[in-house]
Amino acid sequence: MSDRKHRVIFQPMGARTEVAEGASLRSAARSIGVAIDSICGERATCGKCKVIVQRGDFTHDNLVSDINHLSPPDAGERAYWQRRRKGLQAQGEDPDAFRLSCQARVCGDVVVRVPESSQAVQQVVRKAVRARPVDVRPTLRKLYLELEEPTLEQPLGDWERVKAALLQADPITRGPHQLPLDGEKLTIDLAPLRELSRALRLKEWRITVTVRGSHEVVRVESGYSETLVGLAVDIGTTTIAAHLCDLHSGAVLTTEAAMNPQVGYGEDIMSRMSYAAEEDDGLHTMQTAVLKTIDRLSRRAARQAGVKATDVMEMVVVGNTTMHHLFLGLDTLALGQAPYVPTLHSGLELRVRDLGLVSVNPGAYVHLLPITASFVGGDSMAVLLAEGPQRQDEHWLIVDVGTNAELVLGNRRRLVCTSTPTGPAFEGAHVEYGIRATDGAIERVEIDAQTLAPRFKVVGSDVWSDDAGSSGEHPLARGICGSGIIDAVAELYRVGVVDAGGQFRTELESSYLREGEYGRYYVLAETHQTTIGREIPITQEDVRQIQLAKAPLYVAAHYLLHEFGLERPDRILLAGGFGSHIDPLRAMLIGMIPDCPLDRVHAVGNAAGDGAWLALVNRDCRQEARDLLRRLERIELPALPGFQDQFMLALHFPHMVDPYPNLAKIAPAREIDPMVARLYGDNVPTIGSKTV
Amino acid sequence: MSDRKHRVIFQPMGARTEVAEGASLRSAARSIGVAIDSICGERATCGKCKVIVQRGDFTHDNLVSDINHLSPPDAGERAYWQRRRKGLQAQGEDPDAFRLSCQARVCGDVVVRVPESSQAVQQVVRKAVRARPVDVRPTLRKLYLELEEPTLEQPLGDWERVKAALLQADPITRGPHQLPLDGEKLTIDLAPLRELSRALRLKEWRITVTVRGSHEVVRVESGYSETLVGLAVDIGTTTIAAHLCDLHSGAVLTTEAAMNPQVGYGEDIMSRMSYAAEEDDGLHTMQTAVLKTIDRLSRRAARQAGVKATDVMEMVVVGNTTMHHLFLGLDTLALGQAPYVPTLHSGLELRVRDLGLVSVNPGAYVHLLPITASFVGGDSMAVLLAEGPQRQDEHWLIVDVGTNAELVLGNRRRLVCTSTPTGPAFEGAHVEYGIRATDGAIERVEIDAQTLAPRFKVVGSDVWSDDAGSSGEHPLARGICGSGIIDAVAELYRVGVVDAGGQFRTELESSYLREGEYGRYYVLAETHQTTIGREIPITQEDVRQIQLAKAPLYVAAHYLLHEFGLERPDRILLAGGFGSHIDPLRAMLIGMIPDCPLDRVHAVGNAAGDGAWLALVNRDCRQEARDLLRRLERIELPALPGFQDQFMLALHFPHMVDPYPNLAKIAPAREIDPMVARLYGDNVPTIGSKTV
Repeated sequence: MSDRKHRVIFQPMGARTEVAEGASLRSAARSIGVAIDSICGERATCGKCKVIVQRGDFTHDNLVSDINHLSPPDAGERAYWQRRRKGLQAQGEDPDAFRLSCQARVCGDVVVRVPESSQAVQQVVRKAVRARPVDVRPTLRKLYLELEEPTLEQPLGDWERVKAALLQADPITRGPHQLPLDGEKLTIDLAPLRELSRALRLKEWRITVTVRGSHEVVRVESGYSETLVGLAVDIGTTTIAAHLCDLHSGAVLTTEAAMNPQVGYGEDIMSRMSYAAEEDDGLHTMQTAVLKTIDRLSRRAARQAGVKATDVMEMVVVGNTTMHHLFLGLDTLALGQAPYVPTLHSGLELRVRDLGLVSVNPGAYVHLLPITASFVGGDSMAVLLAEGPQRQDEHWLIVDVGTNAELVLGNRRRLVCTSTPTGPAFEGAHVEYGIRATDGAIERVEIDAQTLAPRFKVVGSDVWSDDAGSSGEHPLARGICGSGIIDAVAELYRVGVVDAGGQFRTELESSYLREGEYGRYYVLAETHQTTIGREIPITQEDVRQIQLAKAPLYVAAHYLLHEFGLERPDRILLAGGFGSHIDPLRAMLIGMIPDCPLDRVHAVGNAAGDGAWLALVNRDCRQEARDLLRRLERIELPALPGFQDQFMLALHFPHMVDPYPNLAKIAPAREIDPMVARLYGDNVPTIGSKTV
Repeated sequence: MSDRKHRVIFQPMGARTEVAEGASLRSAARSIGVAIDSICGERATCGKCKVIVQRGDFTHDNLVSDINHLSPPDAGERAYWQRRRKGLQAQGEDPDAFRLSCQARVCGDVVVRVPESSQAVQQVVRKAVRARPVDVRPTLRKLYLELEEPTLEQPLGDWERVKAALLQADPITRGPHQLPLDGEKLTIDLAPLRELSRALRLKEWRITVTVRGSHEVVRVESGYSETLVGLAVDIGTTTIAAHLCDLHSGAVLTTEAAMNPQVGYGEDIMSRMSYAAEEDDGLHTMQTAVLKTIDRLSRRAARQAGVKATDVMEMVVVGNTTMHHLFLGLDTLALGQAPYVPTLHSGLELRVRDLGLVSVNPGAYVHLLPITASFVGGDSMAVLLAEGPQRQDEHWLIVDVGTNAELVLGNRRRLVCTSTPTGPAFEGAHVEYGIRATDGAIERVEIDAQTLAPRFKVVGSDVWSDDAGSSGEHPLARGICGSGIIDAVAELYRVGVVDAGGQFRTELESSYLREGEYGRYYVLAETHQTTIGREIPITQEDVRQIQLAKAPLYVAAHYLLHEFGLERPDRILLAGGFGSHIDPLRAMLIGMIPDCPLDRVHAVGNAAGDGAWLALVNRDCRQEARDLLRRLERIELPALPGFQDQFMLALHFPHMVDPYPNLAKIAPAREIDPMVARLYGDNVPTIGSKTV
């Protein structure tokens, strides 16, 4: 790479920058805040980062742009465009002007256009902790002291003076849930020690001391101060949410959320693990990105709540095992390959400053909930704390669906967990017009069983596509997100457009069914219903992707039920940001979750965030998590016999004739739940099977 | 201050720089590595930083230099030069060309000459831990483990795998002095946790684990490793010494030492405390300076010993209370003013990374010994650990003399301590030709009782001034350091040149006694015996400065003896870098220490460094220090009745007629120790007194 610099202009934003020769277009964009989508982690497979190179003389900018000012595409990128060449031509586009911005490297001045479909938009975040009664038993306690001023005769040191006063005040001020102070072990952290001399002398020897547990002073403030807050943080693969909590009342004061910035280094956890392992300083880069985001969220939350970020004296952080490792700066290499071993399972208690969090108080601690297995992380532990199957007689199945799915089945006697990747289709990837759940993404679909006419709802709008909203305008679609795809495929199956094998039926005729380069497809949104100037179809390939995504989930649940000798769980809880957006009925219809009476399937929202909050306000929950870690059994799916066969079976939609009569059935012909029957009337699918 | 820049050239080095208008000459010098001495902390009183301004046209440099290109001297500096005007003229110098470089601010181009007496030279450091038998019981322990590789069936996390192996190996490998591991509490620090995954897989699941105490893993290394080292650091006001120790054998592998860089911000602790309190970020600046020096020393020591600095897993740091506070970044404001309260007394155990030490292993701890009082610091505690008066029946007096003196008197039943500033004369300040104990400083003096002829020895040479060395050359003097001044004054008193009141006797005639501007003085070195082109005298003022420096020491010892109802101690130990350079006989002669048989006065060398080393290699010593902290009583001198009067009395040299018959005598006419008599023959002073 030479020292030469070149100018790059991004349209339509008009953002311009100068970068060193050899920089990728996408990194150039990122450097000036132009967010270009990426799901595959710059592997030239998802195409989400495509841009269109403008040619010609841009006299206004005194710049000549040409496709030759970018490095030529390598074999991988050439193959990608070869597959799409005809499609682009059909849309009137010049295929030769397209490049993947993650691959194209700058070797001359260039102007590129970022199509709307490539623009990464700030995700709509709907996470919020549910109100829930809980004993408030924080790890922290505040004591207000009025001290004797030292004299030449009694020149006792500051800390020893405070310590004596603390031990004197303890029995008088201690509440029923508070630990007695341990005079022998009582110590003070370096951070408050550095404040001590000044704090004591600022308000005439009156100070407020924050004690953690029974033996450590973590903060001193001059005068009287009541504020006692903590932060519960849920690091999701896509979203990071921070809940600022009052540790006196347990109340959530504010919640702030943001995209997980690691998305820029890879959408799914596997690509992030390889970024961490393969890139120079990749692990540190991704850790720092998350820490900075948490610092930003904590400052924002504190401002909202009218406190200082440095008032935050305790944090609980949950996340799946990969998020947990990246947050701590732990190597993820072993985590990503068999036998998938995490660096540790135990819960951890660290000082925030050891991690490099700078917004909160330097005397604060961060608690991380324990990890069950490489793919069953602290977030699952948090869900258990929040929902409590371990306190039930019934068998509950908890399904936390994200890029990865974590499942726990059990009751007070036994708990078994497992996990499985779900494939990227649920996040909108590998689906022709799939996008994340951002504004303009189709998130709900219904199809009329008689006319096959679709209607849809998009994120950011409350009206259906066949209604005009209060503004008189119909909602327009930009693409389709995970819950929309599940709805669409379930509806296509329900109305008989696809069969139980996922195949488009050739015998049906409809204006919504058209023939394309790759065969039959269904038109979900006509060109005039979109903002992208093209129709949004559901293709045979899209259906296949959903089958691939849902099958492992179903197999995982099957093996868990098998462990207990059960046919079905007593209750199903759908957790996680994505899980709680799925329509339970549609999920059951396509065989994503096992059969269960529909009124016993619940979306529990962001249960991981709830669990983090619980562990923050009630220290007993941390002990409960330690106990759960000992109790929770784990099964590793690919290690189980017959896994491949079961997976093949699970690709089908339920209610089919068994194509493999010699194998144990995992998708038996189901008795339709009365609630399903009521909703669907006569359209309950009864179509015969086809192998996939 | 304007944006204008001016050129400054320092001669004879020829170093040149360009500085902003208003910068002091001394700071300009410091910025390009020209070290100009300073003792008073830039208060325009010591004159050690004087420079001579060159006038005229320096055509070669295209620059005109003039005295007017510096800010005019203020009242303080004018007063300083007024006092020295005649002396300079007598030496053929132009008094108007002299400036104090700490005061003169640049407002035009200027060339200055730095006289040799102003050049700060790297101090000769003689600190070395004495060999001493000790039980080696370090806080750390190494265990080598060979682990089972994880499989899909047994995918236990790395830490839990190591933990199980540790608990299994513990009873087999544990030595008699090692603590059993605590399975319930056993945890791992974040630093080794981050190494764990890689370390395990690098050498086929063979690792070496370093455990601290009974329950924390602080380091993991791939394969087998024996190296276990620690660092004992003694932060003196002037010198920092670091001893790298093998924690298996207890042996000191290497010792490295350097000037305490805080000297640049103030010679004595009071000026450093005011720098910390008054300058922007002064505390942080001084803390960082020391941390960087320790980092440099640890790297140098490790290189010398053939290990890595990151092999250092444990540190013990001792220093007086101010050094302790500055090392930790604790406020020193309250420490420096009545009632002189430290931020804490207790010993501390911190992670090195909390302090910002970066050279040693990030999992390492640093232990700080407890502090008794504001001026009796961890260094005194270290001396007690090393010398052990608390284990004696006899009453021992320990006198640790530096810029500040710390005294402890007692035995196994009772221990009392106090401290006193000694005045800067012992460090060579406030003495006309006083310099620090660097090359060319007169450190030993003898005066012939008959002829009054002097002979001296200088630092860096083994021969006396009246001998020619093996090179045939006589040693030349650059100035006189603390031990030389004490010798000279004691000798002048012994031979009768000065009387018990410290006054030059007028009745004596000798070619070595001359009359100057400020009266009679004694010529210690003739011009041809020096490198500074001038004679080195001992003046009336020099004798006064020694009286002022020694009196508080004597008073402190007096009050301690008074506490015990004793006339004299059974034994005196002179500790500290300076204390162990003092000639005990001369110290007794001038009444710096109480009377005691001469063979019971010992220089114990760097006992603070010894104590730090002990606390490093034997953890029981830390407990002993905790116990001592509880036991050690303390008296605060200025709080005692009659202090001023006692001080006035103590200014005298011993063996005088009491000038204040109504006060209790503190310096009784002494019976000369037979050893003193043997050395001095008939010259034992018997001269009458005079008030000062």
